[in-house]
Amino acid sequence: MARRPVAVLGATGAVGQRFIQLLDRHSGFEVVEVAASDRSAGKRYRDACNWRLSGDMPEAVADLIVGGCDGPFRANLLFSGLDSSVAGEIESRLSRQGAVVVSNSRNHRMDDDVPLLIPEVNPGHLAVISLQRKRTGGGYIVTNPNCSVVGFAMALAPLHRAFGVEAAVVATLQALSGAGYPGVASMDIADNVIPFIGGGEEEKIEIEPKKILGAFKDGVFVPADFTISAAVHRVGVTDGHTMAIFVRLRKKASPEEAMRALADFRGEPQERRLHSAPSRPIHVLEGENRPQPRLDRDREGSMAISVGRVRKDAVFDLKLEALVHNTIRGAAGAAILNAELLEARGLLP
Amino acid sequence: MARRPVAVLGATGAVGQRFIQLLDRHSGFEVVEVAASDRSAGKRYRDACNWRLSGDMPEAVADLIVGGCDGPFRANLLFSGLDSSVAGEIESRLSRQGAVVVSNSRNHRMDDDVPLLIPEVNPGHLAVISLQRKRTGGGYIVTNPNCSVVGFAMALAPLHRAFGVEAAVVATLQALSGAGYPGVASMDIADNVIPFIGGGEEEKIEIEPKKILGAFKDGVFVPADFTISAAVHRVGVTDGHTMAIFVRLRKKASPEEAMRALADFRGEPQERRLHSAPSRPIHVLEGENRPQPRLDRDREGSMAISVGRVRKDAVFDLKLEALVHNTIRGAAGAAILNAELLEARGLLP
Amino acid sequence: MARRPVAVLGATGAVGQRFIQLLDRHSGFEVVEVAASDRSAGKRYRDACNWRLSGDMPEAVADLIVGGCDGPFRANLLFSGLDSSVAGEIESRLSRQGAVVVSNSRNHRMDDDVPLLIPEVNPGHLAVISLQRKRTGGGYIVTNPNCSVVGFAMALAPLHRAFGVEAAVVATLQALSGAGYPGVASMDIADNVIPFIGGGEEEKIEIEPKKILGAFKDGVFVPADFTISAAVHRVGVTDGHTMAIFVRLRKKASPEEAMRALADFRGEPQERRLHSAPSRPIHVLEGENRPQPRLDRDREGSMAISVGRVRKDAVFDLKLEALVHNTIRGAAGAAILNAELLEARGLLP
Amino acid sequence: MARRPVAVLGATGAVGQRFIQLLDRHSGFEVVEVAASDRSAGKRYRDACNWRLSGDMPEAVADLIVGGCDGPFRANLLFSGLDSSVAGEIESRLSRQGAVVVSNSRNHRMDDDVPLLIPEVNPGHLAVISLQRKRTGGGYIVTNPNCSVVGFAMALAPLHRAFGVEAAVVATLQALSGAGYPGVASMDIADNVIPFIGGGEEEKIEIEPKKILGAFKDGVFVPADFTISAAVHRVGVTDGHTMAIFVRLRKKASPEEAMRALADFRGEPQERRLHSAPSRPIHVLEGENRPQPRLDRDREGSMAISVGRVRKDAVFDLKLEALVHNTIRGAAGAAILNAELLEARGLLP
Repeated sequence: MARRPVAVLGATGAVGQRFIQLLDRHSGFEVVEVAASDRSAGKRYRDACNWRLSGDMPEAVADLIVGGCDGPFRANLLFSGLDSSVAGEIESRLSRQGAVVVSNSRNHRMDDDVPLLIPEVNPGHLAVISLQRKRTGGGYIVTNPNCSVVGFAMALAPLHRAFGVEAAVVATLQALSGAGYPGVASMDIADNVIPFIGGGEEEKIEIEPKKILGAFKDGVFVPADFTISAAVHRVGVTDGHTMAIFVRLRKKASPEEAMRALADFRGEPQERRLHSAPSRPIHVLEGENRPQPRLDRDREGSMAISVGRVRKDAVFDLKLEALVHNTIRGAAGAAILNAELLEARGLLP
Repeated sequence: MARRPVAVLGATGAVGQRFIQLLDRHSGFEVVEVAASDRSAGKRYRDACNWRLSGDMPEAVADLIVGGCDGPFRANLLFSGLDSSVAGEIESRLSRQGAVVVSNSRNHRMDDDVPLLIPEVNPGHLAVISLQRKRTGGGYIVTNPNCSVVGFAMALAPLHRAFGVEAAVVATLQALSGAGYPGVASMDIADNVIPFIGGGEEEKIEIEPKKILGAFKDGVFVPADFTISAAVHRVGVTDGHTMAIFVRLRKKASPEEAMRALADFRGEPQERRLHSAPSRPIHVLEGENRPQPRLDRDREGSMAISVGRVRKDAVFDLKLEALVHNTIRGAAGAAILNAELLEARGLLP
Repeated sequence: MARRPVAVLGATGAVGQRFIQLLDRHSGFEVVEVAASDRSAGKRYRDACNWRLSGDMPEAVADLIVGGCDGPFRANLLFSGLDSSVAGEIESRLSRQGAVVVSNSRNHRMDDDVPLLIPEVNPGHLAVISLQRKRTGGGYIVTNPNCSVVGFAMALAPLHRAFGVEAAVVATLQALSGAGYPGVASMDIADNVIPFIGGGEEEKIEIEPKKILGAFKDGVFVPADFTISAAVHRVGVTDGHTMAIFVRLRKKASPEEAMRALADFRGEPQERRLHSAPSRPIHVLEGENRPQPRLDRDREGSMAISVGRVRKDAVFDLKLEALVHNTIRGAAGAAILNAELLEARGLLP
Repeated sequence: MARRPVAVLGATGAVGQRFIQLLDRHSGFEVVEVAASDRSAGKRYRDACNWRLSGDMPEAVADLIVGGCDGPFRANLLFSGLDSSVAGEIESRLSRQGAVVVSNSRNHRMDDDVPLLIPEVNPGHLAVISLQRKRTGGGYIVTNPNCSVVGFAMALAPLHRAFGVEAAVVATLQALSGAGYPGVASMDIADNVIPFIGGGEEEKIEIEPKKILGAFKDGVFVPADFTISAAVHRVGVTDGHTMAIFVRLRKKASPEEAMRALADFRGEPQERRLHSAPSRPIHVLEGENRPQPRLDRDREGSMAISVGRVRKDAVFDLKLEALVHNTIRGAAGAAILNAELLEARGLLP
């Protein structure tokens, strides 16, 4: 069966490279266009891109000529790994030109008519697309959350459904790849921890989950009714964000009940057996010292998150550790799964 | 002036080596005896000890013959860096033999008549020593807290005094040196985080601060009236434990008021200008990304802790980051400062 | 087609785990027995083994009961990842019992009638097996080289064939996984380099390549006629040994000629298309800063080595950088490829 | 006694910060002016400089206003940590204005009338200054070698004097701080080694030692008569360059003889007891696994280099490991020691 042609925007950047890598040999999508900033436009991808992932650049893409991001594009499905300094305007324009923009950038995540989607968690939010299309005239934008939020919100989702989350505190230990490239200077992180991440990281973690776990009702997003506090840290790990989560529940639950809710969690991607969907979105690990980034970030093609150490909490009700592969499940892979759901639902032109 | 002769127990271990290093050229104490397990006893210190600190082993100690830990010792001030598997019994016996044991081990920290001392925070707890002496017949044990707890309790102390702590959540990012030697296998931590530390680390962090910040009244320790929840992580940093702290206060305080309380904090070691006392126990840092282990762990001979990012918290009242040099202020240096206070108070025989 | 049943000795160790991982879903071999030290014997593999590799332990092996290493085994093909402290005697005994022992251990590598095999380089050395079988009565041992030597000898082989190596100097930067588990203490390597590796690492690197690149003539191994000097270092990398190689040639060659010889190198595994054989054993990389462990160690299932920076040398003739995945191409994968060659040649019973 | 006023050029950079740190409380020099690029000029040093060293910025310098690098300066002794993209021209101009420029930059190192100085090794090269002054009219430039070369040439010097070096091969494992700030991206070095360093690092290591260990005769530098080959690597270490050195000697020497020559090495800085001079320039370490960056880089205020593992070499005559603190003995500290020698010799105006 012919694969749907797609374009990757911001294709030479860190997230863009992950898009190219994950879409190579994808069963449903084929990269036919790559776009980046003017500095790269006009060059072959192999020359424009400082390929930083393990293994060689996919041959099929290496000889594409990099285009600009203004469009229009032949493909009408566009994956955006654009930097947030430019993504807002470009994505808006392209959606008004009729394209479907599946974006990892933060700019439109909190927009009133843009879904902030985790396919296992809030596929119902796709209903907003029809409103958005009225505004744009046809195209639309779908976003995925911040890399930490994907892991955090996926871990909260089954607990919220089963027991109701009242408040959550989260401390993150985030990987280097989350800062893009060149990102963090090695002298800043060698033998070190940085208790801060720029770009409003803590704010995003405190706000985005409330939209994701909230309702879409009468054409309006109603944020979930809980409070979040986040403290973020950068640590010297290549990939994989680790999180300590403390949670207060409306309906009390034992660690065992919580673990069962987490382990049993499934969603539409699993029912539809989407190409990138993990069979079990949340791996509940038994080892007393798990999850760990190096050992657990690659579960199910890095698309499953891991949780462990679910235990009673003296201040709240429960505490646990969660892990997400930040550039796959937390970024490029998240966007691809979003597009797979759009395709399966017949929402692609 | 003659320096008081002291012995170091567990002298070949990680904490023991820090004792030897810090006591070299100490103005008041001189290491005249070193003791370790039977495996080392009878050897010269230079042969028994795999010196793992930067720079050479102090010459004055290198040629001492390592003795056993049974005692008696010529010195009547004993610093104990013994492993907790043996420290309990040995320290008890030595105190009954009349020695003053200043211990970094966890075994006696929660004993009813043993002070768990941070000289800036609870010097009044030394009053319990007279009770302990009655039991032992003359000698006694004084302990310092767990390495993380030193930093955590020091950061809580001024807040508790000024505003009353009601509850605190803490997530730690702890250094490798905290696990002793050989400690953590490199393959376990390379490109990794371990969300667990054995030996009841989380329990210690949840319990010890309540004794330290509690009262000693009518001959009894009364724990402070607040709740703590801890989640611990090992990260690939040589020295320096970083902590994200979230705190609920009884009397509301702005970040500025909290920073002032932290920065102004002083105690008896500062008044008495003890040899190892930092001039400012808590350095409140202004940079938005501080404290950091590599840059801040060595403030004032590694005896000052650092705090930063004091800010409002959406779930509790305040959150902040704290840092303590775990093997100096959090272990050997803590014990030495304890001994200096005993000396200054005339509590050494 | 039925897969040949095999056993893995030392199955719970670092190399043993790689055997289990690589043999899972192997087209020709199936692990039906696992053996380890007495401490593990009698337990299920899942309980005996502290699985340290990414992803879960293969289900098919997890429930096998760990046996002792004395044999006999049902399988007559045994993969040995035994520690060198015990491998020598056990492997000898098993070969005398009739088994084919394909070993990664160092003990028998330099034996007069044991091949030290790199299938692409010296498959002719398999001729010695018939001599060995006469001694044992049927079974035999085949070994692969030290992890560094696999990369070093593979890089030297095409140069030696085409131009004749007269002398070589090699400085290695070796990964942590090469030391097994627990191996190197994290406090020894954090923010550090160790310019030493125990167990005679430098001697192995200076001796083994001469056997591998030497002749097997008239029933006798004749070492290659060149000299090697090695200086080894441990660095804080999880997997992948990097080597700086300086080489003096008998017949002068330009960097371009050398690169061509390296890139064109093929051997019997490629002709026979063995299951684990890389299509190109040596990837010659063009980037001025390659090969790099994180980016290049996983080429062709980690079975291809990489070389780069082939350039003129002011003291010798050429210098270059080489990289080998030490626990796959340099250990478990090497042994498996050896076994595949034995199978293809009809040398398995 | 009044301290001589000095200026630091490139004061906000990585080397510049080391100058500021090392000159704080220097007995003979006092920083009274700081200069940097136009971007910083006009700001207070505390605002212009992103201080990256452990501990606080020295108070005495923090409030100085950063000036431009064009001069003239009040101070007539100028320390230059300027980037090589601008250092060449600026240093020439300042020397023509009459200043003494003690530079760490590479631009003038190989100039015909500029000394490339290691005070212990080639103080006689200062004779060239009188020639240089004739050209400039009074001021002059003195340079120190590349950070690796300081360690390498110091290790070669006693061997060359005693036995004559004929050829040397060196493989380096260089620290992150050598690349300045921001320097190496963390994603490039995490779990990785980079076998390349830009800016002609290998060429510098192959050329500079020949000038340093050569003669200055009849007004001309005569390079030492030996050949060097270098292969450089960046490793994930904060400070301290490690080197594997292989050396062929004209007069054969045993490892013991070589160790004695290294350990006994002294020079003019030791005789004159210069402020920054180590009492023993070369520490010969006995441990089979030394020197190591974390343990040995800070010997004698980081001004002594360390060597170890002096042993026979199968290809050449001897091999050994050397270590130098790259930003202190290999950069800012080297320049300061150069200036101390100029002062002691009466060569400062």
